[in-house]
Amino acid sequence: MSLLVKGARIVTACDDYVADVHAEGETITTIGRQLDIPADVVLDGTGLYLLPGGVDPHVHLDFPFGDTKTSDNVQTGTIAAAFGGTTTVVNFTQQLPGERLQATLERGLDTAEGNAAVDYGYHLIVTSLDEQTLPDLDTLVADGVTSVKLFMAYPGLVMVDDRTLFQVLERTASLGALTCVHAENGDVIDVLVQRALAAGRTGPAWHGRTRPELAEAEATHRAIALAEMADAPVYFVHLSCREALDEVTRARDRGRPVYAETCPHYLYLDDRVYDEQGGFDVAKYVLTPPLRPAHHQAHLWRGLRNDDLSVVSTDHCPFCLKGQKTLGVGDFSKIPNGGPGIEHRLVLLHSGGVVAERLSLRRMVEVFSTAPARLFGLFPSKGTIAVNSDADLVLFDAGATHTLSAATHNMNVDYSLYEGMAVTGKVTSVIARGKVIVEEGKYVGRPGDGRYFKRGPSGRG
Amino acid sequence: MSLLVKGARIVTACDDYVADVHAEGETITTIGRQLDIPADVVLDGTGLYLLPGGVDPHVHLDFPFGDTKTSDNVQTGTIAAAFGGTTTVVNFTQQLPGERLQATLERGLDTAEGNAAVDYGYHLIVTSLDEQTLPDLDTLVADGVTSVKLFMAYPGLVMVDDRTLFQVLERTASLGALTCVHAENGDVIDVLVQRALAAGRTGPAWHGRTRPELAEAEATHRAIALAEMADAPVYFVHLSCREALDEVTRARDRGRPVYAETCPHYLYLDDRVYDEQGGFDVAKYVLTPPLRPAHHQAHLWRGLRNDDLSVVSTDHCPFCLKGQKTLGVGDFSKIPNGGPGIEHRLVLLHSGGVVAERLSLRRMVEVFSTAPARLFGLFPSKGTIAVNSDADLVLFDAGATHTLSAATHNMNVDYSLYEGMAVTGKVTSVIARGKVIVEEGKYVGRPGDGRYFKRGPSGRG
Amino acid sequence: MSLLVKGARIVTACDDYVADVHAEGETITTIGRQLDIPADVVLDGTGLYLLPGGVDPHVHLDFPFGDTKTSDNVQTGTIAAAFGGTTTVVNFTQQLPGERLQATLERGLDTAEGNAAVDYGYHLIVTSLDEQTLPDLDTLVADGVTSVKLFMAYPGLVMVDDRTLFQVLERTASLGALTCVHAENGDVIDVLVQRALAAGRTGPAWHGRTRPELAEAEATHRAIALAEMADAPVYFVHLSCREALDEVTRARDRGRPVYAETCPHYLYLDDRVYDEQGGFDVAKYVLTPPLRPAHHQAHLWRGLRNDDLSVVSTDHCPFCLKGQKTLGVGDFSKIPNGGPGIEHRLVLLHSGGVVAERLSLRRMVEVFSTAPARLFGLFPSKGTIAVNSDADLVLFDAGATHTLSAATHNMNVDYSLYEGMAVTGKVTSVIARGKVIVEEGKYVGRPGDGRYFKRGPSGRG
Amino acid sequence: MSLLVKGARIVTACDDYVADVHAEGETITTIGRQLDIPADVVLDGTGLYLLPGGVDPHVHLDFPFGDTKTSDNVQTGTIAAAFGGTTTVVNFTQQLPGERLQATLERGLDTAEGNAAVDYGYHLIVTSLDEQTLPDLDTLVADGVTSVKLFMAYPGLVMVDDRTLFQVLERTASLGALTCVHAENGDVIDVLVQRALAAGRTGPAWHGRTRPELAEAEATHRAIALAEMADAPVYFVHLSCREALDEVTRARDRGRPVYAETCPHYLYLDDRVYDEQGGFDVAKYVLTPPLRPAHHQAHLWRGLRNDDLSVVSTDHCPFCLKGQKTLGVGDFSKIPNGGPGIEHRLVLLHSGGVVAERLSLRRMVEVFSTAPARLFGLFPSKGTIAVNSDADLVLFDAGATHTLSAATHNMNVDYSLYEGMAVTGKVTSVIARGKVIVEEGKYVGRPGDGRYFKRGPSGRG
Repeated sequence: MSLLVKGARIVTACDDYVADVHAEGETITTIGRQLDIPADVVLDGTGLYLLPGGVDPHVHLDFPFGDTKTSDNVQTGTIAAAFGGTTTVVNFTQQLPGERLQATLERGLDTAEGNAAVDYGYHLIVTSLDEQTLPDLDTLVADGVTSVKLFMAYPGLVMVDDRTLFQVLERTASLGALTCVHAENGDVIDVLVQRALAAGRTGPAWHGRTRPELAEAEATHRAIALAEMADAPVYFVHLSCREALDEVTRARDRGRPVYAETCPHYLYLDDRVYDEQGGFDVAKYVLTPPLRPAHHQAHLWRGLRNDDLSVVSTDHCPFCLKGQKTLGVGDFSKIPNGGPGIEHRLVLLHSGGVVAERLSLRRMVEVFSTAPARLFGLFPSKGTIAVNSDADLVLFDAGATHTLSAATHNMNVDYSLYEGMAVTGKVTSVIARGKVIVEEGKYVGRPGDGRYFKRGPSGRG
Repeated sequence: MSLLVKGARIVTACDDYVADVHAEGETITTIGRQLDIPADVVLDGTGLYLLPGGVDPHVHLDFPFGDTKTSDNVQTGTIAAAFGGTTTVVNFTQQLPGERLQATLERGLDTAEGNAAVDYGYHLIVTSLDEQTLPDLDTLVADGVTSVKLFMAYPGLVMVDDRTLFQVLERTASLGALTCVHAENGDVIDVLVQRALAAGRTGPAWHGRTRPELAEAEATHRAIALAEMADAPVYFVHLSCREALDEVTRARDRGRPVYAETCPHYLYLDDRVYDEQGGFDVAKYVLTPPLRPAHHQAHLWRGLRNDDLSVVSTDHCPFCLKGQKTLGVGDFSKIPNGGPGIEHRLVLLHSGGVVAERLSLRRMVEVFSTAPARLFGLFPSKGTIAVNSDADLVLFDAGATHTLSAATHNMNVDYSLYEGMAVTGKVTSVIARGKVIVEEGKYVGRPGDGRYFKRGPSGRG
Repeated sequence: MSLLVKGARIVTACDDYVADVHAEGETITTIGRQLDIPADVVLDGTGLYLLPGGVDPHVHLDFPFGDTKTSDNVQTGTIAAAFGGTTTVVNFTQQLPGERLQATLERGLDTAEGNAAVDYGYHLIVTSLDEQTLPDLDTLVADGVTSVKLFMAYPGLVMVDDRTLFQVLERTASLGALTCVHAENGDVIDVLVQRALAAGRTGPAWHGRTRPELAEAEATHRAIALAEMADAPVYFVHLSCREALDEVTRARDRGRPVYAETCPHYLYLDDRVYDEQGGFDVAKYVLTPPLRPAHHQAHLWRGLRNDDLSVVSTDHCPFCLKGQKTLGVGDFSKIPNGGPGIEHRLVLLHSGGVVAERLSLRRMVEVFSTAPARLFGLFPSKGTIAVNSDADLVLFDAGATHTLSAATHNMNVDYSLYEGMAVTGKVTSVIARGKVIVEEGKYVGRPGDGRYFKRGPSGRG
Repeated sequence: MSLLVKGARIVTACDDYVADVHAEGETITTIGRQLDIPADVVLDGTGLYLLPGGVDPHVHLDFPFGDTKTSDNVQTGTIAAAFGGTTTVVNFTQQLPGERLQATLERGLDTAEGNAAVDYGYHLIVTSLDEQTLPDLDTLVADGVTSVKLFMAYPGLVMVDDRTLFQVLERTASLGALTCVHAENGDVIDVLVQRALAAGRTGPAWHGRTRPELAEAEATHRAIALAEMADAPVYFVHLSCREALDEVTRARDRGRPVYAETCPHYLYLDDRVYDEQGGFDVAKYVLTPPLRPAHHQAHLWRGLRNDDLSVVSTDHCPFCLKGQKTLGVGDFSKIPNGGPGIEHRLVLLHSGGVVAERLSLRRMVEVFSTAPARLFGLFPSKGTIAVNSDADLVLFDAGATHTLSAATHNMNVDYSLYEGMAVTGKVTSVIARGKVIVEEGKYVGRPGDGRYFKRGPSGRG
């Protein structure tokens, strides 16, 4: 089985040139001018960009929230990812109370086995560890789970104390792995939420009003300090505001291995959606952290441009407005937190970043694919177009325009955060390990194409 | 004429893989696994790094200083560059009083024509412009000079006032070109120098003592402010100290297009050389800015790692100790300023950076080749290993060790800044536009191989 | 001659209590509860604040601007000052080209002799000095001129180069004196002004648009750096914007003796006045630095509260709109720069500061009187209410309201910057060295009451 | 009963002059030149400073630590305070598990009643509060306890979570009271301590090595963020290092009401005392936070000079080396934390601050007396020398030298932190509310002279 993509404009995190790409089996073997190599499949890339397949390091598929779970399972979610040019995802599996970490991983792997349209890894969400169970992390790393996630929010549910966070930071660092942190001060937020509810402020708009930027910035600073004392790297998921970015920037300026991702919704949407007049539909925007005032957006774009933000992930965590978000009617704290996004990361980065001249094309590729591949131990199999790398490739028509809508998207959720928004740029074909899985707007692969990726050490520098 | 390099480990600013590289004529045409393409020249790269040829954007060849000029001319200097893995240099030509800029450029081009071993461009040093002569910059850019340099030091000689600097920043920015700045407050330094001389402090050690870090940091801040008011990018040559780096970092953090280079001597040497006991030999270290206290070095390495420093250049500006530096016996202010370095940039970056684990291998390539190529309008012809790029290639033996010495170096100067220093890594072959010019420690090209490169717009992002 | 003020609420920079104050001759001799000491004059202070007389360290009286001079001379200006509770002013005398500094001082002293209603000192504006004339500063200090002022703006007129600034900073510091700086980058501004005029933008609104905040911030940073290299304190006059304040704050944070004043107009007015629709009346607001966007005001108040701004002066520099400002009809650069203010500093600080809860009462006294007295070598004769201090006292009715207007003010100028503005607080009586000079809204002193004050070393800490 | 102090140099936080001071009963009634008022007691102050009595807002007297308690009780501790020129202390009473706050206060008041040599207040240490018991704070404030203290360290003992800290900050702010914080990340420190002990590192030197600066800085930042979200002021006790100071400085720069004290031992001593060779005697220096590397001292002095540090307290918390500190032989975590200091605050501030030219005389008075009086609701009764203030006065001989030693000090503890250190300046007489209690090196008052001071709102600005 072989593939030849001819005449596309190849864009990677550092290069930009026109050439042909040939893959034997799953791997890129030759890149050159007008290659004259026979291939089973030949695609014409003339006039298109050829990008490395996207790496989305923050998705929730088959993910439980109380008694419900995300509306996308591994199958529907990874197909939507493929449509959007993402050929690798890192999903989450969360430790149950008292559960040993290997069991947690097994549950995740079982869920995904045979269902994924694209390659996948797992982060493990740690909810409690002690001196006895810390060594579980070692086995996990050996099994290709080279990142864990901890919550500084949601006391009584998943929040860990600083003792746990500090010890996990130390241990993962010693293993070459990476600790991801949800940074919000859960204690303060909990007081604000309880007070709002007690005052009868129960509507979804109050979700946004009870999670101040400073609660995020404080936790960001704290985790950076703990990581420094542990001599560990740290990665912040879904950074949403300037104040938290400033903490990351300061730490990076003094040379600390501190990384952060933001998400398209923080780059595009703002807190004006949290409007009492919106009724319960506002629950669509019950994301955590919440959407922020619009002035933060310019800072987040700047952070991406400057490499103070390393990655754009989606934090895809979809719940249908009807039947799922409605669990929180009358009590916003019961609304499942999260929103859909796995499908539109590339096109939103292209429209708002490249077309709007906020990001160079190569920087777009870097935050979309190369940087997450490096940080999460997937590089160089993933994250670039180079000889010996996996033939994960996206053909992208930079001039095509279309409109985002729940009516046309492939995610299994009944609303879009960007309903009616016109965007520029369109994925035309997607190749995963040498096999075409999206072509002319159709999914032509099959679930199970995607394999578990045993990830290596987190890469830096 | 064709070339094939087999089995080397190819390292670029973002990739790192083993493959074969084929060039037809001057250009890379194919990269692949075990290429079976016939070639006139075949090099075995097994066990070696294959790097993009270095770009040194700060060299002084055939450069006048008072009544003397640099001991390396274009020919000897570019041969030394080639030995060190540098295949492109950007040299300086300096405006004489009242001279129109096109005439200045012509003088530079005439000097180099037929003499260069590697490709070269020119920066133009502007010493005075007014409203009438500003448009000269436009023609210059059309002639491939997309960068100028101005001095904030040396009052009465080349220092420009803020009015000139501001106007040049504006005009070059509008042309897509880049303004390079020598940032030191010349007025303050001049007072300190005159006072030292008046007090009988005439020895070479006083060069270092009369140029405080704050004089550099102040000028750096000022040029950043002028560039911001002019809405222009700015590039600082030979940044030497933490205080100046802090100004650059702050500007970059808020999104300004501010760039800086440092040089190997600031990364390796410190101000303990400015010792009265050293006698006149101390004149070897009369560089500007001077060498700083040792604690600055860690900050400069950090800046390189963090991308607050974008480039390592050499500021190669050699004068023989005997007969040239000695012009300043009895008056340190008359010592020709500058030192040799063009030959050892790569090996010093490798030893002090990669081997010492201060820089990743790909970051080394970036500061050595890719970033200067981009900023100075040479990319993608120069600065990477990719299809369609010039076949400027360096085979590098990362494990070889050797010792630096004036006795063995190829630069035309009677001393080395690093005499007796052991380093790790060695250039084994150098290819310039498809032609082998250094092989087995011998220069096998001929002067005139190198051509003038009409540079394009300064690249960012 | 003796005086007794009974029952007022005495407020100083650190104390706040009700007591009686007795002065013998010019000096406070006793403070106590219900003093039973006979006095020639007895004032009832019940219900009133008793404040130390104000010190205004930045006024231009009898000050030339081109062919005209300020509309207030020493006599009218100091009477207006007295009405406003200011009992000491520091006026300016400016060095003519080639003039020795002692001659400059003599001219100033001659102008004031016998005309002043309140005590006065002189700053000397230095426009050029060289190695030969620098020692003039020593004699000046011996004559009680312990502060000089230099301009970083107005090239070709009064702007000094960094060489001069650096040397003056060094010399004054060694003498215990203080260097005041007008911080704006004159070169950049000059380019912008010439360009505006060339483009036919000649109206007064363009004054504001050609003096960017960054031009002030840059010069502020530069002067701080020069002062640090000179190991000297530095004082910034009329700081107007956040960016300049940030430079001062950073310097103070690291312990540098850097001080700044702002003026009431920067705390109250903003750049919306620079409106083409305003016709030539906009010339009223041709102040330098110009008024800034409104968001700066909160930062300036914060700076005052935090002691990053040490002083509020008036920069009183009045020119009548008719016949003086009109010199610049058709060319805004010819409009005499400056505006009136000497009379309303206290009431504006009280209304906008204390009543609006931005400043404590004691901090108001500090910036109005104590801090300038200390910094300019007037303390403890001036700046406090304490035994042995001069009996310079202000009775202030904190609850009285009135309206500012050119129709009622005592300054000799045909407009008010605050026309029609209602303020809270009113000076009821003013005592200068034991003599009542303002009583029941009438000036009851006589010109010549005020004496030249030979100032001592600049006080810090 | 009346008192007259004649001819001393009176120094307050803003004034400095020579005069006589007369007190009727407990209160200052007149200040003047050569007062001719009869008095029961007349002291000659010629050649001496007359300072306001010191306010020490951080002392532990009769304070339990596990099964022992501080070696100074209220009586011995306040007598030692008096010897050192401190006429007001604020002691601590700590909430027992489940105890209502009023009961906690009662215990404190009972302990002190009739025993104190100088006036005293109480801070209340809150160890747990919930929504039900939060209103206890209101009654407390009504009873004159306008400050509470919480611990971010010592998990399982007194550490509160962020929820409690946030709610207490909010509540106290609404009451005009002040929240004091012991800022160290207890979780991280606990891990480090347990690990050290597990590794057999049980000696007292390990106390210092298990409490990193960053643990203090992190907690400082966190408390500032919580205070900002609560719109509350916050006060940091015993700030010990540059990193924590930087957090305070940054917060103050942006206008937050954030305050901090440091202690003489952080200004004088450094971590070289934590030396294994020292044997168990090192336990003398088991203070929390521990002594830091010497380079921090210059930053702390700078902070005091700049008013980023507002207060110098002693954190007097003495335990005898023999019999008390020895509880921790074999386990440094069991050593009672704390050291003696109440007696030498003034003389150490004078020697290291004023004599060494790091602080002005008036700034010394401010941090010693005025600022703590203001912040803790004691001003203007305490903290100044002014009419109507309490006649709490210290006569101080600035030129006298002596040597500190456990052999001669008045504190009830068997060692001195400053054994053998020569100091400049000596308290000669102390007056508390008009009564001489120390004279010619002898305590001439009697326990019970001191009264409980119902403190008012915390003063700012």
